[in-house]
Amino acid sequence: MKRIVSIITCLISIVVFAQKKNLVQYVKPIIGTQRMGHVYPGATSPFGMVQLSPDTDTIPYAVKGKYNPDVYKYCAGYQYDDKTIVGFSHTHFSGTGHSDLGDFQVMPTVGKLQLNPGTADKPLSGFRSSFSHKNEVAEAGYYKVKLDDDNILAELTATTRVGMHQYTFPKTNDAHIILDLMAGIYNYEDKNVWTFVRVVNDTLVTGYKQNNGWGRTRTVYFAMSFSKPFKGYGQKNFDTKQIYRGFWRKFNQEQNFPEIAGKKIRMYFDFDTEENEKVKIKFALSPVSQKNAIENMQNEIPHWDFEKVKLQTQENWNNELNKIVIDASNDNKINFYTAMYHAFISPTTYMDTNGEYKGLDQEVHKAAGFTNYTTFSLWDTYRALHPLFNLVQTNRNSDMVQSMIEHYNQSTLKMLPIWSHYANDNWCMSGYHSVSVIADAIIKGSYKGDANKALDACVATARKRSYENIGDYIDKGYIAAEKTDISVSNTLEYSYDDWTIAQLAKKLNRQDIYNEFIKRADHWKNNYDASVGFMRPKLADGTFKKEFDELSTHGQGFIEGNSWNYSFFVPHNPTALIDTMGGKSIFTKKLDNLFTMHLPDSFFAETEDITRDGIIGGYVHGNEPAHHVAYLYNWTNQPWKTQAQVRNIMKMQYKPTPDGLGGNDDCGQMSAWYIFSSMGFYPVAPGSSEYSIGSPLVNNAKINLENGKTFEIVVKNQSDKNVFVKSITLNGKSVNNHSIDHSEIVKGGKMIFTMSNKHN
Amino acid sequence: MKRIVSIITCLISIVVFAQKKNLVQYVKPIIGTQRMGHVYPGATSPFGMVQLSPDTDTIPYAVKGKYNPDVYKYCAGYQYDDKTIVGFSHTHFSGTGHSDLGDFQVMPTVGKLQLNPGTADKPLSGFRSSFSHKNEVAEAGYYKVKLDDDNILAELTATTRVGMHQYTFPKTNDAHIILDLMAGIYNYEDKNVWTFVRVVNDTLVTGYKQNNGWGRTRTVYFAMSFSKPFKGYGQKNFDTKQIYRGFWRKFNQEQNFPEIAGKKIRMYFDFDTEENEKVKIKFALSPVSQKNAIENMQNEIPHWDFEKVKLQTQENWNNELNKIVIDASNDNKINFYTAMYHAFISPTTYMDTNGEYKGLDQEVHKAAGFTNYTTFSLWDTYRALHPLFNLVQTNRNSDMVQSMIEHYNQSTLKMLPIWSHYANDNWCMSGYHSVSVIADAIIKGSYKGDANKALDACVATARKRSYENIGDYIDKGYIAAEKTDISVSNTLEYSYDDWTIAQLAKKLNRQDIYNEFIKRADHWKNNYDASVGFMRPKLADGTFKKEFDELSTHGQGFIEGNSWNYSFFVPHNPTALIDTMGGKSIFTKKLDNLFTMHLPDSFFAETEDITRDGIIGGYVHGNEPAHHVAYLYNWTNQPWKTQAQVRNIMKMQYKPTPDGLGGNDDCGQMSAWYIFSSMGFYPVAPGSSEYSIGSPLVNNAKINLENGKTFEIVVKNQSDKNVFVKSITLNGKSVNNHSIDHSEIVKGGKMIFTMSNKHN
Repeated sequence: MKRIVSIITCLISIVVFAQKKNLVQYVKPIIGTQRMGHVYPGATSPFGMVQLSPDTDTIPYAVKGKYNPDVYKYCAGYQYDDKTIVGFSHTHFSGTGHSDLGDFQVMPTVGKLQLNPGTADKPLSGFRSSFSHKNEVAEAGYYKVKLDDDNILAELTATTRVGMHQYTFPKTNDAHIILDLMAGIYNYEDKNVWTFVRVVNDTLVTGYKQNNGWGRTRTVYFAMSFSKPFKGYGQKNFDTKQIYRGFWRKFNQEQNFPEIAGKKIRMYFDFDTEENEKVKIKFALSPVSQKNAIENMQNEIPHWDFEKVKLQTQENWNNELNKIVIDASNDNKINFYTAMYHAFISPTTYMDTNGEYKGLDQEVHKAAGFTNYTTFSLWDTYRALHPLFNLVQTNRNSDMVQSMIEHYNQSTLKMLPIWSHYANDNWCMSGYHSVSVIADAIIKGSYKGDANKALDACVATARKRSYENIGDYIDKGYIAAEKTDISVSNTLEYSYDDWTIAQLAKKLNRQDIYNEFIKRADHWKNNYDASVGFMRPKLADGTFKKEFDELSTHGQGFIEGNSWNYSFFVPHNPTALIDTMGGKSIFTKKLDNLFTMHLPDSFFAETEDITRDGIIGGYVHGNEPAHHVAYLYNWTNQPWKTQAQVRNIMKMQYKPTPDGLGGNDDCGQMSAWYIFSSMGFYPVAPGSSEYSIGSPLVNNAKINLENGKTFEIVVKNQSDKNVFVKSITLNGKSVNNHSIDHSEIVKGGKMIFTMSNKHN
Repeated sequence: MKRIVSIITCLISIVVFAQKKNLVQYVKPIIGTQRMGHVYPGATSPFGMVQLSPDTDTIPYAVKGKYNPDVYKYCAGYQYDDKTIVGFSHTHFSGTGHSDLGDFQVMPTVGKLQLNPGTADKPLSGFRSSFSHKNEVAEAGYYKVKLDDDNILAELTATTRVGMHQYTFPKTNDAHIILDLMAGIYNYEDKNVWTFVRVVNDTLVTGYKQNNGWGRTRTVYFAMSFSKPFKGYGQKNFDTKQIYRGFWRKFNQEQNFPEIAGKKIRMYFDFDTEENEKVKIKFALSPVSQKNAIENMQNEIPHWDFEKVKLQTQENWNNELNKIVIDASNDNKINFYTAMYHAFISPTTYMDTNGEYKGLDQEVHKAAGFTNYTTFSLWDTYRALHPLFNLVQTNRNSDMVQSMIEHYNQSTLKMLPIWSHYANDNWCMSGYHSVSVIADAIIKGSYKGDANKALDACVATARKRSYENIGDYIDKGYIAAEKTDISVSNTLEYSYDDWTIAQLAKKLNRQDIYNEFIKRADHWKNNYDASVGFMRPKLADGTFKKEFDELSTHGQGFIEGNSWNYSFFVPHNPTALIDTMGGKSIFTKKLDNLFTMHLPDSFFAETEDITRDGIIGGYVHGNEPAHHVAYLYNWTNQPWKTQAQVRNIMKMQYKPTPDGLGGNDDCGQMSAWYIFSSMGFYPVAPGSSEYSIGSPLVNNAKINLENGKTFEIVVKNQSDKNVFVKSITLNGKSVNNHSIDHSEIVKGGKMIFTMSNKHN
């Protein structure tokens, strides 16, 4: 009976799929899992709380307090070149350059119980298993792999808050499903703060795990349900320093004892299985309580039909992908839809089905009329990801802005988030780019909340004098180099952020605020050293710092970049930047230099987060600060160079291979860059309603807007060589200024590019 | 204006007090704070959540994992002989033999900031202060002391959930109020699991502290409010291993930084003060959240009038004490009312003003129609404390039983509590004496809940085979000595507990349950060795263990006692015990021996929890197992010996001096023994509605029952020498069987003792 229902469900879904294009087929989550991409191949739902994915190693973040650089490649828990899988854990970042998560690692095994993970070179010594990519499938919302050591087939899917596992076992009386509550990504000795578990009955386990990691005070609650009862279970507490465990003489706490608590716990659940018997697990998360985790599970998966869940999740993905329907080569479709997939992974839902979530104040809140989100990697995502959301995820983006406002309301610092992570701000990276996201969302009409209160929050944040030298920046117009090693990039970033506040103030007729912040928007000029033609650190006495190397990424006043890339960071006023730098001709040559220079080997030795492949000339695409730079030719007399460069970047930096991302995907920013550029335009300065025009890679794109209208991009005479734009019309009228306004897109219409292999 | 209001409040209270007797004057919390009593002198409300009291040292529970025996005397955080006070913390146990708590230690200081507690021999090296008992006052609900090092007067009072401090400062620009979030009683290296603090504004601080101690998973939330704004504040995080603190370069987290988290935090708040300026603090606790702590504070103390709070709390105490009004010598009144005070400290309220509490499952629950309690030291308190509640705290006792039932409902083990401590069971001591408390409460008519469900919970607990050898006990009728070193006391205690279940089953007409448990109630016989006349460990093969020493408290099969004391532990069937031991004559001689023997020095060397003063002959009053024994003469032909002994015990074991308690008060059990015995009767077997009659110490006692009736005990011809009871009448009728039934008391009436210096 169940089989028939599954088949019917399948057929119905095929019919439904047919009404939208099957775009899920172009999503290859394996792209970017080798080397620098730092994405994971496992199963997740669009913007979902759960990211159920295989972890291929257990390298700690630090040993005896000392940072271990080998951990870096495991930001997503998975590296394509690894030969073993340790287990499947339920939370992962996508594409970050630092990490956390990897909570609740589950691993099916057969044979003698081994309560340690083993090592990569000796997998049989522990519960991990060898595997081969030949027996691995990764799709949007679905992952499958054969675990070779014990001949178990593992399949994973996920709804928003629940991960679902399906394990096909051989015949055995010795199956053990491991639940490792010690495991984690970027783990270190004292990272596990506390773990609490209740074995409620022989199919239900609940509890929570609390960590001190990148989220300083981070607790995740869970409910784990098995499709059939376990015959027994046990645990081991690996913490030698835990004095109080409950009186151990009274009962054996290691076997079949249902009240468990400690810092370092591993559990196992025992089963008998027939040949090819499938044992399934539903694993729900909650930020708030075990009760809510159970409720999430009951609401999202009230049955045991794995295929049904997989189909539903893939249909959800397909619906999201159909927001932009393109015609392009197969490889380009793979790159495009994989990018859309990566762009719709975070920010992540951080709220239970009943609306409750954990606030920044560590108290339980109820979200009234919005979905609460976290995982705001704002230094990356303000640039193109949130602007993309203002086209095809306007409702979600409105909720994301609302989440930021709630964070502000709960903050004793009275600041918007810098980097929001599970009821914490980890304050990572620089700037206060939430103001850019908020301004862009309001100016582009996405935000449904109180815009004036939002502006107040932006202003309070930008006036927080005690935060990262903002006081100095306000008083002097720049930050003295003696104060911090990122004085210049801070000033440039604050300057742009302040400009977005001014735009928002202008829209809301708050003239005083506008006047205050439009002045601050010019402070970038204070770090420009005309004598060398670069942005340069300035000392407290007003002189520029003597030692200066425009190529070096260390000690030059810039975060994760060098002066060559950062000197172009005045996205809100390229015209003034060009003037300041000496005019269009000089500026054009500078850009040319950037894209064609040869970098010395020393550059690569000292720089993280990118590879040689992430660089074109000296232009670093693998990290964010230069993402707008290729479009700056549009402000010179040689806009055709923008067209050539962006097509070049798309070709070089995005490939449909495991190693296909030249740098960390950074929670979707790299992907969002690609999506815009493929369609032929890019938001150089979010907060402005203008997009700068580049060179589309697609043959055709239809943006199916949430307001029901469609914006179509038609590309005539498209080919690999035809990178130059001969002409553009918008709804029949000629477009000559290399830009298009947001209002034109959202009212629907048609933009026609005619391409050529020669530039104008 | 405030002063006038205070005076008027004062006058009104005097008038109100006048309508009840002023009994608070007889309460001396200092009694028992020297050596063994383990009580604290600070301020608390009847059954209150807060116990705001001075801590006089900081000895850790363990160092490098090794137990430190010096910690034992600091179970209550205070020892009378100490010369310094470290600070005032908000939670303490009263009279326990193991410990925890001491959360949120506050200390006012002046001068150079010192963020360490200093040492007892060098108080000036840290924030602690010297003090003298000459400048110390301890009353019910009020504590005062002069801190000599900085010349600060400290006063404390408390409502149920809020501690209030009033500090009178000298003139200074350098006042610092320390908040030590690392401090605790029975502390050890990794006990502090996590601490989180928000400085909400310049008068309000909230947060929580989470420990792994005697309560394995224990979190306390707080809200701290100052009567005037602090001018600045700071913190220091003493955890060298905490890697993630939030990005430190961005702001100075040590001064005026309002978002704080870590394992080892000390904070300070800075003030300027005028000469004799009073700075006050309201410090509220909650088991659930910071929001609830604030609400508790607003509900319980919505103003800043310290005197008003003190008066209200003392009036609450006085109302409680007036439940039994006695006429006796001044010293005896002091002993009696101090005992009543100690008897009404725990169990403690564990619920917010909105009814929410943290359950055993670590989830938030709402108490529907009852007050939730914790701190159930059941091995001690089932004997006389809860029986006392069935006379003068029936509503509270009903709620306590309800709390136990909720604990059972939330338990994955499906057991009633053994030792309930702040949303944990620490499973301390032995037996499952909650069943005795529940049976007694139902049989005596206190419990308002579902009695059959309560019986079900008792039965499930007593059938928990895997808990501390209950399975063996069920199967064999005794526990094999090879299984545990407390095999005999377990059997004796289970046997009595089972008898109480049988009584409850009989009352509820559950015949099958009655039959099952009345059989088990006889299992004590299996450990009786007629060849030696003592209870003795029995091996798995059915033979008694060869090595046997009836005086030794180690390895003889008894918890915290020896065979000499435990062999009398068949409180539910003294008649059968006497038969089994060979008849009344032999039994009487045995009791005589117990009370007159000389103990060897080795006994004292190997035994904790009592002193020589706690012992009469070989009878150990300082610990609980023998508390009923002096009454057993009533089952012999020489009941007058009961009368002599109980008068002797009262005289020797209870004195109105700091060293006045011969053993740990054990959450009120020692005190309850005294209260009953002073009035002339004692509940030898809770679960039975009978009280065994002894020899009253009072001249007169009026029990003002909650049902509005009064039971009066009149004692004629009373004196120190007149310890023997010549005759007793109850409502005019003669009482000849040395017992009185509960029903006689609660319907009101008059019992008249006529005393004599000669026995019958």
